[in-house]
Amino acid sequence: MTALQLRQNSLLGLKGMGREEIESILSRASHWERQEQKVQPVLAGRFVANMFFENSTRTRFSFEVAEKRLGAEVLNFSAAASSVQKGESIYDTVRTLESMGIDAGIIRLKPAGVLQELAERIQVPLINAGDGNNEHPTQALLDLYTMRQQFGQLAGLRVSIIGDIKHSRVARSNYWGLKQLGAKVSFCAPDNMREHELDVPYVGIDEALQADVVMMLRVQLERHEGGMIRSAEEYREQYGLTAERAARLAPHAIIMHPAPVNRDVEIDGDLVEHPQSRIFPQMQNGVPVRMAVIERALRG
Amino acid sequence: MTALQLRQNSLLGLKGMGREEIESILSRASHWERQEQKVQPVLAGRFVANMFFENSTRTRFSFEVAEKRLGAEVLNFSAAASSVQKGESIYDTVRTLESMGIDAGIIRLKPAGVLQELAERIQVPLINAGDGNNEHPTQALLDLYTMRQQFGQLAGLRVSIIGDIKHSRVARSNYWGLKQLGAKVSFCAPDNMREHELDVPYVGIDEALQADVVMMLRVQLERHEGGMIRSAEEYREQYGLTAERAARLAPHAIIMHPAPVNRDVEIDGDLVEHPQSRIFPQMQNGVPVRMAVIERALRG
Amino acid sequence: MTALQLRQNSLLGLKGMGREEIESILSRASHWERQEQKVQPVLAGRFVANMFFENSTRTRFSFEVAEKRLGAEVLNFSAAASSVQKGESIYDTVRTLESMGIDAGIIRLKPAGVLQELAERIQVPLINAGDGNNEHPTQALLDLYTMRQQFGQLAGLRVSIIGDIKHSRVARSNYWGLKQLGAKVSFCAPDNMREHELDVPYVGIDEALQADVVMMLRVQLERHEGGMIRSAEEYREQYGLTAERAARLAPHAIIMHPAPVNRDVEIDGDLVEHPQSRIFPQMQNGVPVRMAVIERALRG
Repeated sequence: MTALQLRQNSLLGLKGMGREEIESILSRASHWERQEQKVQPVLAGRFVANMFFENSTRTRFSFEVAEKRLGAEVLNFSAAASSVQKGESIYDTVRTLESMGIDAGIIRLKPAGVLQELAERIQVPLINAGDGNNEHPTQALLDLYTMRQQFGQLAGLRVSIIGDIKHSRVARSNYWGLKQLGAKVSFCAPDNMREHELDVPYVGIDEALQADVVMMLRVQLERHEGGMIRSAEEYREQYGLTAERAARLAPHAIIMHPAPVNRDVEIDGDLVEHPQSRIFPQMQNGVPVRMAVIERALRG
Repeated sequence: MTALQLRQNSLLGLKGMGREEIESILSRASHWERQEQKVQPVLAGRFVANMFFENSTRTRFSFEVAEKRLGAEVLNFSAAASSVQKGESIYDTVRTLESMGIDAGIIRLKPAGVLQELAERIQVPLINAGDGNNEHPTQALLDLYTMRQQFGQLAGLRVSIIGDIKHSRVARSNYWGLKQLGAKVSFCAPDNMREHELDVPYVGIDEALQADVVMMLRVQLERHEGGMIRSAEEYREQYGLTAERAARLAPHAIIMHPAPVNRDVEIDGDLVEHPQSRIFPQMQNGVPVRMAVIERALRG
Repeated sequence: MTALQLRQNSLLGLKGMGREEIESILSRASHWERQEQKVQPVLAGRFVANMFFENSTRTRFSFEVAEKRLGAEVLNFSAAASSVQKGESIYDTVRTLESMGIDAGIIRLKPAGVLQELAERIQVPLINAGDGNNEHPTQALLDLYTMRQQFGQLAGLRVSIIGDIKHSRVARSNYWGLKQLGAKVSFCAPDNMREHELDVPYVGIDEALQADVVMMLRVQLERHEGGMIRSAEEYREQYGLTAERAARLAPHAIIMHPAPVNRDVEIDGDLVEHPQSRIFPQMQNGVPVRMAVIERALRG
């Protein structure tokens, strides 16, 4: 493959990705999930670097399991450390690792907009593991996979996403993916956690709970000082999935959350492993989904 | 194997472990020590996670060598970072890694009592790499292995453990193991470093030195502000293994220490590689002992 | 091989290394660079530890790629963390990892003079990945390799090294290597960044630019408070490789830098990927050069 073709196997976001492409990834993930043998060395001798400019041991771990199950050589690079990373220094680092011979890079970073520019200057395929408030496409893919596992198909499915939409790359990536697959998305959030660029209606918490899928987002209250909601208790009371609210969900509805969970803030601790919760299955699904994405990056 | 059977292969502590079980682990360690070929991939395709909620690069390194010698896929997870980890967040993390498909977890954590509860809620086997003041069973097993290597058997062996008994999981695990194998344990410690739940006599430093095995513990004086001993010099003078005291050991006696050593505090620097010291051999023995423990966890 | 023979395969510095030995490493690097298959498991079953007492994720990454391409088992140990590491505690750590069965160690540390002593007390071969202001031999070898790639041979080649010579282990190692291979070295530096033990003339920036190779060093101005140069702008103006200065280089001359680069301080951002720059090729060459060094350490 040429560098350009390789680069086209990058996964920067779900925005602009077509329905067929998404479904092809989900199907391949399903193939990987069915394997009895954990390690299938289709990527033996290939080097994959996990480049985390923003810390996330859980996401890095999920990618690393996926890479090792594909037989790839794994290298971890973390530069989250101290200073704010600027675009140019991120480029220098990624270009350095590319020079050293990696075949693909998983990348997580804080500043929005840097990744697109990076991907144009780097020859090897890049996979977005979360970039600022922009996208987190493998999280959305594993969410779609989890919904498909539950409901067979997504067309017409009502999905409520509840919480800090404004800062959520998970919400954005899910929006693009769900839209392509024909689901009906609603957002539910306090005023200061809304964003208005996406074509999604905001509904109240009671209406949000009537969906087939209730996806809670992690809230970081320290980001919202001066807003209407001043405490974790208040947030829970107004927007949290409490046991009382969970009891009003339709019996077929499922609860999702990208984790890590703030127990008893956006979701009550007792609901994390509730029969209707798919929180740990989501993490389980992350591995075959990421296998499919990495394989696609390297084998086309 | 069922989840329950797997879980029974966990190693949470030596308390309650029978003599035969301990000896079977030590014998298997001896098998691994004798191998010419370092890597014997009996665990190929199995995923082992080192989950360190409390930092210890040395212990993690020893486990990682053991895992790689068994051919396992190794994943490192460290969350020691900043905040105090509470039981529930540790559970969420371990459950997350379990969801991602690990086959066994090595776990080190600070709060006591959490591990037992964890092991009841997690399906894969867990190996305790140190939990608070409670136990550090693989350290004790490698200590037992080192003593057996030296003396053939442990029945009747006189073992003195000297130092901060109160905060020492090493002392506790050794106590349970030594008792099962018939050794006679004495403790030696200043008043504020004693604990009185274990059925072990406290003796003075001179009597402690008459043992077959003199095990020095790492002392952390910052834990004991306000006690009788106010400085490293004072500690060394009253409880340290000085060159002068070492000269009074029986010729057949051995010096042990779980490391890392505070040179010239609990033990004089010159004694670390003294002919009677087994400090580095202990670390060497840690690898085959941990191989035996990990193999037991995964193969029953 | 005996321990002594193994130790002789250590690479502590280029000082005292003969021309033939250097050329043999460069030739072997060339062999590795030509391989189509990235992984050639000549070191399968051997354990190599990257022991970084001073942080450098880039250098560690380069060594790790080299180790994995040789099929070795890789272990990473980082103790840079907090406290100043003293010689004895570094020794205890390295001796600990040696006890656990590593076959070779890559080591980076801050205090000068410690490495030589370490190598005398440790049985396995050690490779210097940077020790204080002393040497960084694999960096110099990859620099020599890059020059040879460009110019065929180094005899008579004019090499200018520009910047903080005083604190630069890169300058020192290059000096020893270049001298053995017959190149003519000049230094260029402000007064307070000079050292005068090496037999190298200092020249002005204009003369320095007339060389075949212009090697810029990373400058850390915080090390030089109170000197004549008070700001990054002033440094750039007097000693930086600006676009204006680069235009005056001979057409056949090349620009080098050990990276990471301070863009627009010692070198203008636009020059990093200038046609005459070999900065990223240097990093690329680092991998086969380190493969040759590691292989030499373990296979003699």
